Amino acid sequence: MEQDRILAMLNSVKDGGMTPEEALLKLKTQPFEDMGFAKIDHHRGLRHGVSEVIYGEGKTAEQITRIVSSMADNGQKNIMITRLSPEKAAEIEKTHKVDYDPVSRIGLCMRESVETPRGLIVVAAAGTSDISVAEEAALTAETLGNRVERLYDVGVAGLHRLLSNLDVIMGARAVIAIAGMEGALATVIGGLVSCPVIAVPTSVGYGASFGGLSALLTMLNSCAGNVSVVNIDNGFGAGYIASLINHIGD
Amino acid sequence: MEQDRILAMLNSVKDGGMTPEEALLKLKTQPFEDMGFAKIDHHRGLRHGVSEVIYGEGKTAEQITRIVSSMADNGQKNIMITRLSPEKAAEIEKTHKVDYDPVSRIGLCMRESVETPRGLIVVAAAGTSDISVAEEAALTAETLGNRVERLYDVGVAGLHRLLSNLDVIMGARAVIAIAGMEGALATVIGGLVSCPVIAVPTSVGYGASFGGLSALLTMLNSCAGNVSVVNIDNGFGAGYIASLINHIGD
Amino acid sequence: MEQDRILAMLNSVKDGGMTPEEALLKLKTQPFEDMGFAKIDHHRGLRHGVSEVIYGEGKTAEQITRIVSSMADNGQKNIMITRLSPEKAAEIEKTHKVDYDPVSRIGLCMRESVETPRGLIVVAAAGTSDISVAEEAALTAETLGNRVERLYDVGVAGLHRLLSNLDVIMGARAVIAIAGMEGALATVIGGLVSCPVIAVPTSVGYGASFGGLSALLTMLNSCAGNVSVVNIDNGFGAGYIASLINHIGD
Amino acid sequence: MEQDRILAMLNSVKDGGMTPEEALLKLKTQPFEDMGFAKIDHHRGLRHGVSEVIYGEGKTAEQITRIVSSMADNGQKNIMITRLSPEKAAEIEKTHKVDYDPVSRIGLCMRESVETPRGLIVVAAAGTSDISVAEEAALTAETLGNRVERLYDVGVAGLHRLLSNLDVIMGARAVIAIAGMEGALATVIGGLVSCPVIAVPTSVGYGASFGGLSALLTMLNSCAGNVSVVNIDNGFGAGYIASLINHIGD
Amino acid sequence: MEQDRILAMLNSVKDGGMTPEEALLKLKTQPFEDMGFAKIDHHRGLRHGVSEVIYGEGKTAEQITRIVSSMADNGQKNIMITRLSPEKAAEIEKTHKVDYDPVSRIGLCMRESVETPRGLIVVAAAGTSDISVAEEAALTAETLGNRVERLYDVGVAGLHRLLSNLDVIMGARAVIAIAGMEGALATVIGGLVSCPVIAVPTSVGYGASFGGLSALLTMLNSCAGNVSVVNIDNGFGAGYIASLINHIGD
Amino acid sequence: MEQDRILAMLNSVKDGGMTPEEALLKLKTQPFEDMGFAKIDHHRGLRHGVSEVIYGEGKTAEQITRIVSSMADNGQKNIMITRLSPEKAAEIEKTHKVDYDPVSRIGLCMRESVETPRGLIVVAAAGTSDISVAEEAALTAETLGNRVERLYDVGVAGLHRLLSNLDVIMGARAVIAIAGMEGALATVIGGLVSCPVIAVPTSVGYGASFGGLSALLTMLNSCAGNVSVVNIDNGFGAGYIASLINHIGD
Amino acid sequence: MEQDRILAMLNSVKDGGMTPEEALLKLKTQPFEDMGFAKIDHHRGLRHGVSEVIYGEGKTAEQITRIVSSMADNGQKNIMITRLSPEKAAEIEKTHKVDYDPVSRIGLCMRESVETPRGLIVVAAAGTSDISVAEEAALTAETLGNRVERLYDVGVAGLHRLLSNLDVIMGARAVIAIAGMEGALATVIGGLVSCPVIAVPTSVGYGASFGGLSALLTMLNSCAGNVSVVNIDNGFGAGYIASLINHIGD
Amino acid sequence: MEQDRILAMLNSVKDGGMTPEEALLKLKTQPFEDMGFAKIDHHRGLRHGVSEVIYGEGKTAEQITRIVSSMADNGQKNIMITRLSPEKAAEIEKTHKVDYDPVSRIGLCMRESVETPRGLIVVAAAGTSDISVAEEAALTAETLGNRVERLYDVGVAGLHRLLSNLDVIMGARAVIAIAGMEGALATVIGGLVSCPVIAVPTSVGYGASFGGLSALLTMLNSCAGNVSVVNIDNGFGAGYIASLINHIGD
Repeated sequence: MEQDRILAMLNSVKDGGMTPEEALLKLKTQPFEDMGFAKIDHHRGLRHGVSEVIYGEGKTAEQITRIVSSMADNGQKNIMITRLSPEKAAEIEKTHKVDYDPVSRIGLCMRESVETPRGLIVVAAAGTSDISVAEEAALTAETLGNRVERLYDVGVAGLHRLLSNLDVIMGARAVIAIAGMEGALATVIGGLVSCPVIAVPTSVGYGASFGGLSALLTMLNSCAGNVSVVNIDNGFGAGYIASLINHIGD
Repeated sequence: MEQDRILAMLNSVKDGGMTPEEALLKLKTQPFEDMGFAKIDHHRGLRHGVSEVIYGEGKTAEQITRIVSSMADNGQKNIMITRLSPEKAAEIEKTHKVDYDPVSRIGLCMRESVETPRGLIVVAAAGTSDISVAEEAALTAETLGNRVERLYDVGVAGLHRLLSNLDVIMGARAVIAIAGMEGALATVIGGLVSCPVIAVPTSVGYGASFGGLSALLTMLNSCAGNVSVVNIDNGFGAGYIASLINHIGD
Repeated sequence: MEQDRILAMLNSVKDGGMTPEEALLKLKTQPFEDMGFAKIDHHRGLRHGVSEVIYGEGKTAEQITRIVSSMADNGQKNIMITRLSPEKAAEIEKTHKVDYDPVSRIGLCMRESVETPRGLIVVAAAGTSDISVAEEAALTAETLGNRVERLYDVGVAGLHRLLSNLDVIMGARAVIAIAGMEGALATVIGGLVSCPVIAVPTSVGYGASFGGLSALLTMLNSCAGNVSVVNIDNGFGAGYIASLINHIGD
Repeated sequence: MEQDRILAMLNSVKDGGMTPEEALLKLKTQPFEDMGFAKIDHHRGLRHGVSEVIYGEGKTAEQITRIVSSMADNGQKNIMITRLSPEKAAEIEKTHKVDYDPVSRIGLCMRESVETPRGLIVVAAAGTSDISVAEEAALTAETLGNRVERLYDVGVAGLHRLLSNLDVIMGARAVIAIAGMEGALATVIGGLVSCPVIAVPTSVGYGASFGGLSALLTMLNSCAGNVSVVNIDNGFGAGYIASLINHIGD
Repeated sequence: MEQDRILAMLNSVKDGGMTPEEALLKLKTQPFEDMGFAKIDHHRGLRHGVSEVIYGEGKTAEQITRIVSSMADNGQKNIMITRLSPEKAAEIEKTHKVDYDPVSRIGLCMRESVETPRGLIVVAAAGTSDISVAEEAALTAETLGNRVERLYDVGVAGLHRLLSNLDVIMGARAVIAIAGMEGALATVIGGLVSCPVIAVPTSVGYGASFGGLSALLTMLNSCAGNVSVVNIDNGFGAGYIASLINHIGD
Repeated sequence: MEQDRILAMLNSVKDGGMTPEEALLKLKTQPFEDMGFAKIDHHRGLRHGVSEVIYGEGKTAEQITRIVSSMADNGQKNIMITRLSPEKAAEIEKTHKVDYDPVSRIGLCMRESVETPRGLIVVAAAGTSDISVAEEAALTAETLGNRVERLYDVGVAGLHRLLSNLDVIMGARAVIAIAGMEGALATVIGGLVSCPVIAVPTSVGYGASFGGLSALLTMLNSCAGNVSVVNIDNGFGAGYIASLINHIGD
Repeated sequence: MEQDRILAMLNSVKDGGMTPEEALLKLKTQPFEDMGFAKIDHHRGLRHGVSEVIYGEGKTAEQITRIVSSMADNGQKNIMITRLSPEKAAEIEKTHKVDYDPVSRIGLCMRESVETPRGLIVVAAAGTSDISVAEEAALTAETLGNRVERLYDVGVAGLHRLLSNLDVIMGARAVIAIAGMEGALATVIGGLVSCPVIAVPTSVGYGASFGGLSALLTMLNSCAGNVSVVNIDNGFGAGYIASLINHIGD
Repeated sequence: MEQDRILAMLNSVKDGGMTPEEALLKLKTQPFEDMGFAKIDHHRGLRHGVSEVIYGEGKTAEQITRIVSSMADNGQKNIMITRLSPEKAAEIEKTHKVDYDPVSRIGLCMRESVETPRGLIVVAAAGTSDISVAEEAALTAETLGNRVERLYDVGVAGLHRLLSNLDVIMGARAVIAIAGMEGALATVIGGLVSCPVIAVPTSVGYGASFGGLSALLTMLNSCAGNVSVVNIDNGFGAGYIASLINHIGD
């Protein structure tokens, strides 16, 4: 289905000539390519604002390559692959150019520059060991078209490191707060800013951190009303949601 | 400190004549009234966009009354008290007029109409037993100045009830998805809309729902990238965050 | 004990000439071969409808080979070995022909075609990473004599992928719903069909999936009344139960 | 929508004149009555084989009465209300005749006799304290049209009590095994029969039974391949699934 | 055994004329009064620096009264009873004068003023609902002879409330940090002071606070090296340890 | 079946004239009376050494009375009912004489003195609050015919209370160690004696005792090789096992 | 201290000339050799009935060798090392002769035959994968001087395998019941015998077995009164306790 | 900022010429060096009494080397790196001299002797496998300037090993009690001494020790009032707190 036909249909929905359910059914007739092991959604860009993102873990390099090829053939840009090991990235590179970042383990194919709204997303991480997750969040947001400022090693056990960057976090439209261990960073930031804070617990820690459970519970119990939480180590989700929020603003 | 003096100071921050840290210190000189058992924050409206909300559980009716009095004396409006029992509401009523809603257990003092942005917040609840939490979210959002649409009893075990309301949820700027038991509603909605979804697990259920743990884990593990989660039964938090997001848009 | 003697005895039970307990004792006199490390049950086919299945994990290749030999010597067919590593399969292959499938890790010895009832079993899996468990379920059901239809990558975060296959799942006599992460697939399918749904949580996921616990709780709390659950990653059990149900129907 | 129009539509689906999706949309136009707090599904009987069952917990007597009235007005029969307290039953009784059983806490309105298949469902309970859950399962199955045999107090710590009823459980088309504490009953029965076993853990016990968690884990880890599990204390679900299985057989 | 005989013996230990083990045996000959249900330790004051404290929960008023009588008869002062309900306090009052504080639920018999070291103990509590536990800590420390400063409602979601009291907490020889919900207060204080911080998680909260588990894990995972933790709601223990530390200093 | 016929049969088993399985079948023909809600085992005394014990929780007074009547009619003595509330005891008293102990909540019908072996069972309890469970253990052992010595309030935080009773515990043939909270008593006793120690964790405690979980884990992880554990608060089980061990000795 | 001096002292205790506490102190003067990393107890044989057993995990081969040397120098026999890897065993072999069993991972130094009581210990294991733990129990009991009968692969999902060995388990003075997964074996055996049953949960399993937690809870909740439990995979403890019980009998 | 300027400022705080908040802001202007991945705090020595300690896990050798260089350039001494692998230590050694201890995995750069107070810290460990954690605590305390006495292998299952060292532990100003498995050591020591006890649970154990959870819960539930707890395996924290307490004393 070509681009203009879709637009026509969507206008018809807007005008009341067609119900959303009918449109959904229409879109459903050829919306994805069935590869057996995966069903690629070529219209996700239309419905969700971003291309479908490929979760790299649990897929072979060959499976990912075939999915990328199919998406590229359908004209998709900025195809993002998360949790991609260097080995798989090298394998995919044989077929497609991959911009690969080993810290965040994100690969990007069919890169294309995107416009960014004026709002700022701040990514704050409590410790050096949280940087891998933080970069997944930051790169995700940048790829989706956002200005991002990084504040790393600002854990609340050394409060002055955070307070000396008050101007930065107070200027954000959305803050991503990333912390393992006791995870208190989200609440402290939540109390200092008036924008939404997306908290990401990390599995960094030992003993009673129980693989991130401690930080997760801390963040869920935050006394700051503007904090919501995503899964442990889910930098991608936080970057994605922050981007959705930031794009509302312009 | 009067309103205009605060504005002058904030302008000075904007112009670079004063750093945010200096302003913070200034604001700190008289920002709260210390009652011993509580420290009331009379400038929260300025910093956070809403008046401080009183969490009613664990406070006596007398304590709440004194806090409301202090806030009212400082000219605050729309003072919201959450998790307020009918008994305490009746007690407070002796001193202050309270708009009390028994379903959400929210009390509102010093009511005043507020302007609302054009965007819509949808509050979707899976079952009839989740309505109490859902109303806490909906009333919070309405009090903070938002248009709210309610969709109740749309759990995914009867998918057609949700699908026949596709047009409503697709028109939202933020969706609050509320469910106990297996909590699958958030993911299904997350996949259908392109705006942020705030998921609220509820303690509704029995057996292996373990007081809401099951729904909580479901929502944290959501495969939909636009879903973030608040604490079990935290309708207030969801309504508050949805309002923050909605107000970015206008 | 030969086949006809067993039949005679069972007829005697039916006619009241012998109580089931007496028959049980009789059957017990030579029912299994004691190998010290295992007691092989050569009459399980009679009592349970299928040959005893060998759980490959925790047994050495040599132990498995000896069990297969003993079963083959007793004339058993379609001897299935689950959770069999490629290395052990190769080792057993030296003595017995093994049909080995590396995805499901199932090995089959003494293959023989079986009749299948008219009913259909549908195996639906939420994500690409769940395919290994899904194939264990599907191959188990096929080996036990069933028609099986596979629906992979139909997770509910992209609902249209499932809905466009409504005709397939509605035609099933039993559905196996397989999902990790938030595990919501079982409930959505449960609400769409009127046959039994066997749900299999998988250990696919990270963070708060806690090795499959999240999906397990989701499925146990399903609001759809026709959903029952087996152990995490237990594709075999699901395929086995679905087969039992399907064979009732003809 | 009248009965014959629905049949015509379903025939059209069968003949290929209409896809199931189109039929689903049609059925969706008036399928439920929206009461605000609940959306009553008047076609569930058609799609699921039984009338929608009302989960009584968390609903007020008034809400239940209104739902029953709506269903009765649409001609539904055998309207089952589960987890109904005696107080609410008495309240509903003022408007509708309720057959109420205090042990299982099931109420039945608009009773009507139903045909039953030849197959037998056996409900086995380990202890006297499990009888409440067992009766929920047994009455559910009977209401849905099944022959049911009860075996109570047959826990495996006194194996002879179970073994002396071998003939009963071996004659079943589906067995429901109900146990709290250590929950071993399901596995022992699973090893003795060749039909599907639906296991129901109960919250009966103390100390390390942790509200039924112990029995739940036992049953999920059953070494008997024919055992699947429902939520703790979910007698209704077990009775419902057993009925679905039993009705396949005739 | 009289006071001077004990001193003589202890001097003998110091001089090497007697080993500590021999002294222990000696002390053991008449160290406690055996009441059957309890063994009262009349020398604990000597060995531990404080009289034995009576844990009131799980003991009847009669049992407590008999223990207090026995201790008073042996000349003990400042007999503290923790977790004492108002009802039991009233009952004991019939026999002994009890200074009873309903907030901390501490009763004190045979009150006697004690000398206090110069050092200061600060008791900081995050929320109004934590005051009950905080008062248990504060009163315990005061009873054991310490200057105590209370800082209540200084949770880190409103950081300025804590920062404006920096001078107080920086002047402490030991800080007790008390918080429920997300429990972040301990870490933030730990990073601001250079004295030991004793953290007390409270059971205040709802949902994923799981009865104080969330705050407990947060505090155990604190990134501030000077934080150690006591049991949930254990205000007494914290006050006791802070007192031990404070008394080292003079 | 009369006593002598049973003895004859057992002798036949001993002489090889009958297999145990055959005897089991024989015993099974009339071994219990089926009351529907319970199956009373009148031969348990023969097989297990004690009469069947009635677990009182979850049974109505009427059900218990009927069971006691049936057992008394069959000539059973020392019928023990555990976890019996005072209310139910009073109800049963109307029909049968009940020796009821409110601390252990044990009721005894048809009391008859029994012979006791020379060996001693020591019941040691850490705190005053553990006495209820300790008495359940002690009374159980006494009822089953054992000499019992009680050591209460000997928790290891006051080690001298335990050490001054070393002679008592060292003279035991089996020790029952009962403790809540941190549960360390079992290990310390285990290291001091050379007989089997049966550890009973209790639900006494608060906060991180999590209903006895803490004491349970402590005891399971005991470094003393002679410690085995029963369920939380299971005083009966400990008394029963200690009795079995003690009776081996004479 | 030589053997005869110890005996003299013990006789003095028996005659009342010396209290056990005094004897304990005496024994304590030279009871262990302090190696810094370990304190070897050369009198344990006297007090506990067996030589101190060396727990091999977490100790280096060199540390174990030094401990064995010290014990051998003190004339100890049958020095047992548990959880010993083949590599460490080979290393120790260079200095001491080691009887090493790779299945149970037990090493035995200074072997010497011991007398055994008439009683029998039965070690029953549910599955082939449990054999490693079962052998640890069986070898421990044999080393401590006991007749042991092994019953392997008798899980309750195939009840006839256990029932056909009824004569064996009924002849035991103590039974060790070993099972992973659902762990039901202990209860079933407990109901069939009248001697103490020591239950050992194993970590065998997957998914919801959670490393043995499922089997552990099952066994703790056993409805059979004669079952007590040791730690997961603790074959040694079970063998040790069974031996203590068995030696009471002669 | 030079040393004397800081002292001048602190004196000004003391004299009231400057508030602590103003001083905090001043100190904040150049307090740390921002390296992007870490923010090094060069004034921590002043505020906390010790130099900032580098947590080695999760940092690369290169990152640690750069942090050490920066600290050394600022004249810091006794730079401690915890959880440092031998490989990283060797890498850092290329640039800085490292005193590395492989048991505790602590590295020390820029070593310099420090004065120690008269008080004694005792480090008591239950088993040989706990020595690694114990050495982390002991070395930390020694590096921070304390006299330390080690008591290893004094677990309470062999109580005499601890009791024969009573004089040592009774002479301590603070005791660190380290234990895995059942963790009872802390309570027993807590009852014997009158100084603060810092308890460190270790992950040593298997089965139901659940990675240290068992020992952690035991210690949190200690009945000895002078026990507080740090995270599992957190030897550093315990050594640090014990040092803070010990330094109060002189």
